[in-house]
Amino acid sequence: MGGVPPRSPLAPASFPDLPSVAGLRLATAAAGVKYRGRDDVMLAVLDPGSVVAGTFTRSRTRSAPVLDCEAKLGGDPSGPAAILVNAGNANAFTGRNGVAAVEAVTTAVAIATGAEIGRVFTSSTGVIGEPLPHDRITATLDQMVAQLGSGDFEAAADAIRTTDTFAKGAGGRVSLSGGEVTIAGIAKGSGMIAPDMATMLVYIFTDARIEQDRLQDMVRRLCDRTFNAITVDSDTSTSDTLLVAATGASGVDADDAFEAALHDVMLDLAHQVVRDGEGATKFVEITVTGAESEAEARKIGLSIANSPLVKTAIAGEDPNWGRVVMAVGKSGAAADRDRLSIRFGDILVATEGWVAPGYREEDGAAYMKNAELQIAVDVGVGDAQATVWTCDLTHGYISINADYRS
Amino acid sequence: MGGVPPRSPLAPASFPDLPSVAGLRLATAAAGVKYRGRDDVMLAVLDPGSVVAGTFTRSRTRSAPVLDCEAKLGGDPSGPAAILVNAGNANAFTGRNGVAAVEAVTTAVAIATGAEIGRVFTSSTGVIGEPLPHDRITATLDQMVAQLGSGDFEAAADAIRTTDTFAKGAGGRVSLSGGEVTIAGIAKGSGMIAPDMATMLVYIFTDARIEQDRLQDMVRRLCDRTFNAITVDSDTSTSDTLLVAATGASGVDADDAFEAALHDVMLDLAHQVVRDGEGATKFVEITVTGAESEAEARKIGLSIANSPLVKTAIAGEDPNWGRVVMAVGKSGAAADRDRLSIRFGDILVATEGWVAPGYREEDGAAYMKNAELQIAVDVGVGDAQATVWTCDLTHGYISINADYRS
Repeated sequence: MGGVPPRSPLAPASFPDLPSVAGLRLATAAAGVKYRGRDDVMLAVLDPGSVVAGTFTRSRTRSAPVLDCEAKLGGDPSGPAAILVNAGNANAFTGRNGVAAVEAVTTAVAIATGAEIGRVFTSSTGVIGEPLPHDRITATLDQMVAQLGSGDFEAAADAIRTTDTFAKGAGGRVSLSGGEVTIAGIAKGSGMIAPDMATMLVYIFTDARIEQDRLQDMVRRLCDRTFNAITVDSDTSTSDTLLVAATGASGVDADDAFEAALHDVMLDLAHQVVRDGEGATKFVEITVTGAESEAEARKIGLSIANSPLVKTAIAGEDPNWGRVVMAVGKSGAAADRDRLSIRFGDILVATEGWVAPGYREEDGAAYMKNAELQIAVDVGVGDAQATVWTCDLTHGYISINADYRS
Repeated sequence: MGGVPPRSPLAPASFPDLPSVAGLRLATAAAGVKYRGRDDVMLAVLDPGSVVAGTFTRSRTRSAPVLDCEAKLGGDPSGPAAILVNAGNANAFTGRNGVAAVEAVTTAVAIATGAEIGRVFTSSTGVIGEPLPHDRITATLDQMVAQLGSGDFEAAADAIRTTDTFAKGAGGRVSLSGGEVTIAGIAKGSGMIAPDMATMLVYIFTDARIEQDRLQDMVRRLCDRTFNAITVDSDTSTSDTLLVAATGASGVDADDAFEAALHDVMLDLAHQVVRDGEGATKFVEITVTGAESEAEARKIGLSIANSPLVKTAIAGEDPNWGRVVMAVGKSGAAADRDRLSIRFGDILVATEGWVAPGYREEDGAAYMKNAELQIAVDVGVGDAQATVWTCDLTHGYISINADYRS
């Protein structure tokens, strides 16, 4: 393996300044699950009354922690709740041993924090197929409980990284009709080292007040337009987890402005995951309009975003609109070949099923040199639209994933 | 672009010795559509009574020649038929101009060969979005008709290449219950140069006697287990075409042995396309057993075969079974995580949802050094199975598709 990869060229300048969230306390520790000389465990403790919503990977080979978390959503919120995340071992594809490890960790967290075991959520990310050394994790609990503080989100984001090249955070203060609330979220995603796999973990906290089922609906709805609208390499982890916890400590009820702010935090974190895509040198926004439904538009968008030929063309700064047409066609979604139009940024490249009359190849080529690109496709069959985000496919991706032996 | 790419390391030693097919005559010519100094057009003329079956790309942005061919299958076979293929320009995404070009070429072929226009099939492969210079193609027709011969299949396979690194052919003599027939097929596929796209074109000829609808059913059935079971990079061309023509000139009726022989020719050609996959250094057979249906098994197999993480692990000779588990999970097909087993060749790597007790990483690593690999996955939920074939994803793929400007 050797060495820390350089910070992605698409990374934000620095970790954002995030407000503390009333009712939430955080701590991190070095459990030595796999990494040495860094924190690799994060503990979040939520005051009584907090509700937790979430969405998870749709993989058919989901890890034990994912199954455990999902079963616990929507439980009685009267007592405290806790979230524990470790990096370095995914506890995935570990058979019955994996279930036992989740039990061991959640039991110890419940004892250390006073939360009911049904209110203890865990996530694991890292190597798969190896037993989770859960005793190393539980050995850090007393220390973390003693150190719980009002929230160093950057330390928490750092502790859950595997091969991410930067810590990811987003949030701020939001004015709702009833007063001000705070939202703060962290994420990890997109690095991998043999035999790890890309896992996306996201934790968002707010002191807004909201019922669990309403928060759950909101999260599910927003997920389609944020985390489910990004792709680095089309591969899906067995461990992807998004948890959103609302403590209610502000006493301010969530409203439409809250949903809008939560959307922005989720989208910001989703974009940061793409910006840390393995080997990425371009951040690409793909908007599909004129589709029969939003789902069809997203299907076309992801077909373009996942196409190796489109992604390599972008890496090569090649304005290869023919590959975009190909990807529209292979999506299987309705599209009218002879009404298709394509724009690169403001440049109309193709229209009515053919190259646009005024299009000059050198204009397209100049545009492709940008690090942030926008591709817009109208498929000419309806009024629905969707936007997805991806990165390019480069030699860097091959190097990270092929040029070593585990 | 510069230079002819080296012959794939996975290519067969030489073009096979193929028998001539009674009732079929072939010719090639240099039309100069795009390439210079080589033949780039192929004409096949079939005697009266020949039937033609076919399957085509399922892309929603199919090219004009594909739509024209599909509409002509199953026509009255009493007169002669003709197939004309050009390399260098795909006549795809060319709007109304593309339809006019097909009309111009098919009309000229009909006049030159005496076939009804409804019996003239054309394919085009190469650059997309540029008008087909059909006059250059039709200018070669008289010369080709004068030179029609009993069949230099290698010359025909060479004429339809774009960036294939070798000419692809398969076939032989087959003993049926009624006597001997011949089958000979050619294919092109997998190379691409900006702004081309990978197109697979396949033409198979036989002198066996068979009704068109029976041949069509057979071809469709066999396609699922051959051409629809291979993938290089998951991208689908707008022009993929498979035509199978039976002249009946042998007077021998097709039977089960014919279907078996046709299957073998189709599979051989399909494998050659994978072996010429861009940048490929490994030929990989993936067999999925224990699935709920053959379609589900193929879905899981293609999910593994298309996974960038699996393909880069293979390129890196990394026995990364965790990525295989991931790809099974993301397929969406039914699978029992805790009954999953994985073999690399004869080596049992994982069983009952965890690493196999006797598995040693160094055995897996040694196996991955082979150029031909077999991955077997049992998903533990049923009795159905399917096999698919793919290649690895290497720096060569990125170089071919990203390291240039068109």
